[in-house]
Amino acid sequence: MKWSMTYILSHDMVTNMIHQIGLKTVYRQLVRQMKLDYMHWHDFHHQSRISAESPNGVIELMPIHNQQHYAFKYVNGHPSNPSRQLPSVCAFGCLSDMDSGIPVLIADMTLLTAIRTAACAAMVYDCIRYPQDTIDIAIIGTGAQSEFQITAMHEMHPIGTCYYYDIDDHAMQKFSDNLSEYPFNLQAINGVADIPSACDVIITATSCLTPSALAIKQSNRRKIIIAIGGDAPNKQELNRTLIENSTVIVEYLAQTKREGEIKSANPKQIITLHELVQSKQTLSNDLIVFDSVGFAIEDYSTLVMCQGWFESLPPHEFFGVLDDPKNLFSQIIQGTP
Amino acid sequence: MKWSMTYILSHDMVTNMIHQIGLKTVYRQLVRQMKLDYMHWHDFHHQSRISAESPNGVIELMPIHNQQHYAFKYVNGHPSNPSRQLPSVCAFGCLSDMDSGIPVLIADMTLLTAIRTAACAAMVYDCIRYPQDTIDIAIIGTGAQSEFQITAMHEMHPIGTCYYYDIDDHAMQKFSDNLSEYPFNLQAINGVADIPSACDVIITATSCLTPSALAIKQSNRRKIIIAIGGDAPNKQELNRTLIENSTVIVEYLAQTKREGEIKSANPKQIITLHELVQSKQTLSNDLIVFDSVGFAIEDYSTLVMCQGWFESLPPHEFFGVLDDPKNLFSQIIQGTP
Repeated sequence: MKWSMTYILSHDMVTNMIHQIGLKTVYRQLVRQMKLDYMHWHDFHHQSRISAESPNGVIELMPIHNQQHYAFKYVNGHPSNPSRQLPSVCAFGCLSDMDSGIPVLIADMTLLTAIRTAACAAMVYDCIRYPQDTIDIAIIGTGAQSEFQITAMHEMHPIGTCYYYDIDDHAMQKFSDNLSEYPFNLQAINGVADIPSACDVIITATSCLTPSALAIKQSNRRKIIIAIGGDAPNKQELNRTLIENSTVIVEYLAQTKREGEIKSANPKQIITLHELVQSKQTLSNDLIVFDSVGFAIEDYSTLVMCQGWFESLPPHEFFGVLDDPKNLFSQIIQGTP
Repeated sequence: MKWSMTYILSHDMVTNMIHQIGLKTVYRQLVRQMKLDYMHWHDFHHQSRISAESPNGVIELMPIHNQQHYAFKYVNGHPSNPSRQLPSVCAFGCLSDMDSGIPVLIADMTLLTAIRTAACAAMVYDCIRYPQDTIDIAIIGTGAQSEFQITAMHEMHPIGTCYYYDIDDHAMQKFSDNLSEYPFNLQAINGVADIPSACDVIITATSCLTPSALAIKQSNRRKIIIAIGGDAPNKQELNRTLIENSTVIVEYLAQTKREGEIKSANPKQIITLHELVQSKQTLSNDLIVFDSVGFAIEDYSTLVMCQGWFESLPPHEFFGVLDDPKNLFSQIIQGTP
């Protein structure tokens, strides 16, 4: 290894690579890598992310490592950014070799964060699914994350009908335009009350600060609610009664208790995602909530997948080359190589 | 502000800029910025750095923010790296706008870390100096950091004679070669016992795990020992008696207690660097130790200085451009811009 060889992967490089590989394949690669990493949960050192809050939003660092690799992601969440033509979420990550501490790659992860969040939800459903040909799905909130959730789920479990709702008509139009080429039915609804009782999956992807009246109608099959995002300190999408009657799946309990839906209610049962992936826990009831706040191991999996994509291409000299690693000052005297 | 406009500053760009500006001016700019930031210490949110340890070394994240900016640095310390032609320290940092969470710049900080560590020590001496024309200085350990320490100090306080020692003859030769053009006397010595009693400043820049027998000889003027680096968990450069008889200056007490020389002994007096810069504390004796482990605010100052250097140049499209910040999925459909 030549130490200076670090991949610097800009947005365009990552997006071009995703086009080349195809989004479907990316979802499958990522679900596979994520399952593998969650299977080896106890090989990792875990910690909650480190937050810096301001009136407009939050900036977070999400580090994790095992014996082989160190990874961290920088990510912000500023809900009012789009009004200034700025994205509400912007992310980049770094994967390093634990043995030497040298970064292997630094990559834009804005798009990859949306993809990994969706792939993780699809993986969860994969672990608890009720066998059937196609699934019906409803999504509340058709913002930036929504199409990724639907397409990842569709790749793993073909969708029959997708019901969708947002308080913003423009967002609903954007959602149906973006998904018009997909083979499932798209059905706009007028609110959460219109979600059919037979829906297998309900996704909430809003930035609601007050619990929506998501009343779960009785049905004879297992139902999962996927509550996306731990992006705002006071965010709450699901009401207390619903959580108290559910089995709640969490990624990393210490972090989800601080950021997730469970911060204000005690579920009937809590199981961790790594126990679910390792089939070490049985779901005690048929109403399941995945309290998805996003955990560092998912970004680790994403960066390891990225490393695989780019390892055949030439890296960058971001960190430069040193003739003598002990002679740093020579760069001041000699000038750059 | 166009959100995609983030400066990606590689090693070569940073090094070329330092050559263009001149190392002397960089030291002066940085001491000025660092003093300003230490003056405003209470405007910042502080925390100890977050470490990931492996048998070969450590990887750290160092975040800090105030109302305006968020900054963090990634840095590793792997003492055995040079035997594999890898640098023992490799660093990069990011400066972001707190209001939007968008990164303003991402920069290689390997060289800048050495420069800021040296500038910080020169700033400390600046705050406690005994007025005189020139100073005599001794340095124990002439590795990668050594010339920066000497040249930064020389820029702020002209050096008369510089005494130097390392267990490695090659490192001593490199040190004297690198500094041969400087106007002060270079005097090799055979060990710590040879340091003249009249030396004003003694710098220890080793990776010693056992305290060296640094006996301080009596003299009639104030003496400062600068113990550089918190880079290894068990590192200890100064012996207990010396620390117990000293006034010790620390950057951030919680972190220095874990990493610094004071982890194994209680000094006569501890004062924080921000109190020193703000002249809020009086030094109670003439034997002073700066227990320098490096704190995030110094990297913040460095990144703010960097921002000033590059703001007239065109930035990079690392994070890409979004026509509609709420329509992330369109990038999957349309392809890259």
